[in-house]
Amino acid sequence: MILTVTLNTALDLTYRVPALVPHTSHRVTEVTERPGGKGLNVARVLAALGHEAVVTGFAGGPTGAVLRDQLAPLPVRDALVPVAGNTRRTLAVVDEATGDTTQLNEPGPVVTADEWAAFLTTYETLLRDADAVALCGSLPPGIHVGAYAELVRRARAAGVPALLDTSGEPLRRGIAARPDLVKPNVDELAQLTGSQEPLRATHDARRRGARTVVSSLGADGILAATPDGTWQATPPAKVLGNPTGAGDSAVAGLLSGLVESLPWPARLTRAVALATATVLAPAAGDFDRTSYEDLLTRVTVTEHTPAA
Amino acid sequence: MILTVTLNTALDLTYRVPALVPHTSHRVTEVTERPGGKGLNVARVLAALGHEAVVTGFAGGPTGAVLRDQLAPLPVRDALVPVAGNTRRTLAVVDEATGDTTQLNEPGPVVTADEWAAFLTTYETLLRDADAVALCGSLPPGIHVGAYAELVRRARAAGVPALLDTSGEPLRRGIAARPDLVKPNVDELAQLTGSQEPLRATHDARRRGARTVVSSLGADGILAATPDGTWQATPPAKVLGNPTGAGDSAVAGLLSGLVESLPWPARLTRAVALATATVLAPAAGDFDRTSYEDLLTRVTVTEHTPAA
Repeated sequence: MILTVTLNTALDLTYRVPALVPHTSHRVTEVTERPGGKGLNVARVLAALGHEAVVTGFAGGPTGAVLRDQLAPLPVRDALVPVAGNTRRTLAVVDEATGDTTQLNEPGPVVTADEWAAFLTTYETLLRDADAVALCGSLPPGIHVGAYAELVRRARAAGVPALLDTSGEPLRRGIAARPDLVKPNVDELAQLTGSQEPLRATHDARRRGARTVVSSLGADGILAATPDGTWQATPPAKVLGNPTGAGDSAVAGLLSGLVESLPWPARLTRAVALATATVLAPAAGDFDRTSYEDLLTRVTVTEHTPAA
Repeated sequence: MILTVTLNTALDLTYRVPALVPHTSHRVTEVTERPGGKGLNVARVLAALGHEAVVTGFAGGPTGAVLRDQLAPLPVRDALVPVAGNTRRTLAVVDEATGDTTQLNEPGPVVTADEWAAFLTTYETLLRDADAVALCGSLPPGIHVGAYAELVRRARAAGVPALLDTSGEPLRRGIAARPDLVKPNVDELAQLTGSQEPLRATHDARRRGARTVVSSLGADGILAATPDGTWQATPPAKVLGNPTGAGDSAVAGLLSGLVESLPWPARLTRAVALATATVLAPAAGDFDRTSYEDLLTRVTVTEHTPAA
């Protein structure tokens, strides 16, 4: 099975309003709720690809209970660890006039030292049966900034390949613990390396400890610096839609390709096809299967020859 | 006891953000939750004034469960009727840079005919012990627009004075059923009567069926057209603060004054002192007791002599 870790799970709310006008009152015309946090999204896509997916991390309080209720019917196994605090909500306010989204993210519950210790025990147990693990998203309050580095080291000790998808200081610390794969976007990459030039920054990130760095370049696809070479995978055309969850779908593509021992060009093709099919799906975070299967034949992969 | 009816109860969330910028992403710095809906606010203030207060209306789903949990320790009795749908949230986003608030209100659960029938049974039972009833706020989806008119008629049949605080068509229908008191603000009054002139509009509203109309004029206090005469009660000075809940505190002042058979000038003084002390309180919807007691001696009441 493939394990995904979401330390700061969320109940993702979407409010549709006719037009968002600050400092006025709005009647929300439509409310939707779904279990969220990057690792949960990754697990959902893995399950849709036919993989057994287990989610862990923290959930607590009334919002955590709603999240777990909504997770129950999905084809992913819930191995979330209880916390006393209330799981956070994230709110996307969609302005129907412009289609633009305004995002409001709660910070999440404060996780105690005892809760972190309980999580580590669960994590160690789950690693025994894991073919790969994805470590995803922001850290809730109370969790030390080196937490992902610790989880990467434990995965390495258990012989389980680890993918890290986070940002800021947790990414900087985590990459130094030598994960198999990190998947920064261009902003995260620039923050990590100081370079705005994706190829240079991707190679720089790799030198910091990751075995492979796959940088997501938005509409330009992904750039992968691996031990076997450097490739760029590009979708056939720029698509319009909702990019929410596209990065998580790419992570699912990379992880499933790793577990299936696909060659790099096929892994990258799958990741780009899934990300693009997610942008094209009507509901945020889902992917459109017909588009996905079509895109698998139309993504372009080019190998970069070394500059020197 | 005094009964308050809130057909569309709400869990009131407040998010503080450094600055609200549409179409960007925000980290919420502080989240607060409290049970809300106008009738719940009225009951809380009634209890603080020493009255026994009972709240009814609807609550359901996970949000209704949180609301009832948070209501439990308060000195008001919970007689809410369960519904299958999820109680709505209202969200106030406070921009810390400007102090301004952006409000997003969910529509509320769809109430079925069976749930409405169950509510009417509870309402009839509670009316037997009620000295007065307040009918407060918007109608949830599924409730017919004449619902408040029906509740006013049932209160009259039970010999219980009814105060109606709503807006739009539910107010127009409700007022025709001859409640003892309606408490529109200037916008609601203008919408009802077509007149922007408060004195004229208040008398016009009274001719539509209410025994007394008390119009809230914001910083100018309140204007009351009663069977015994017309009065205006004015706070000593314009105050700065959060007006959320000021109208609900005024309703509690009017209802408690009715039950205590206070003369009109004393009732109006209490209503204005409570509303003003609510604007002055640090937490939205609470009132500042020291300010309240001070204001009781400083509110001005003037009688309007008839024009003809």
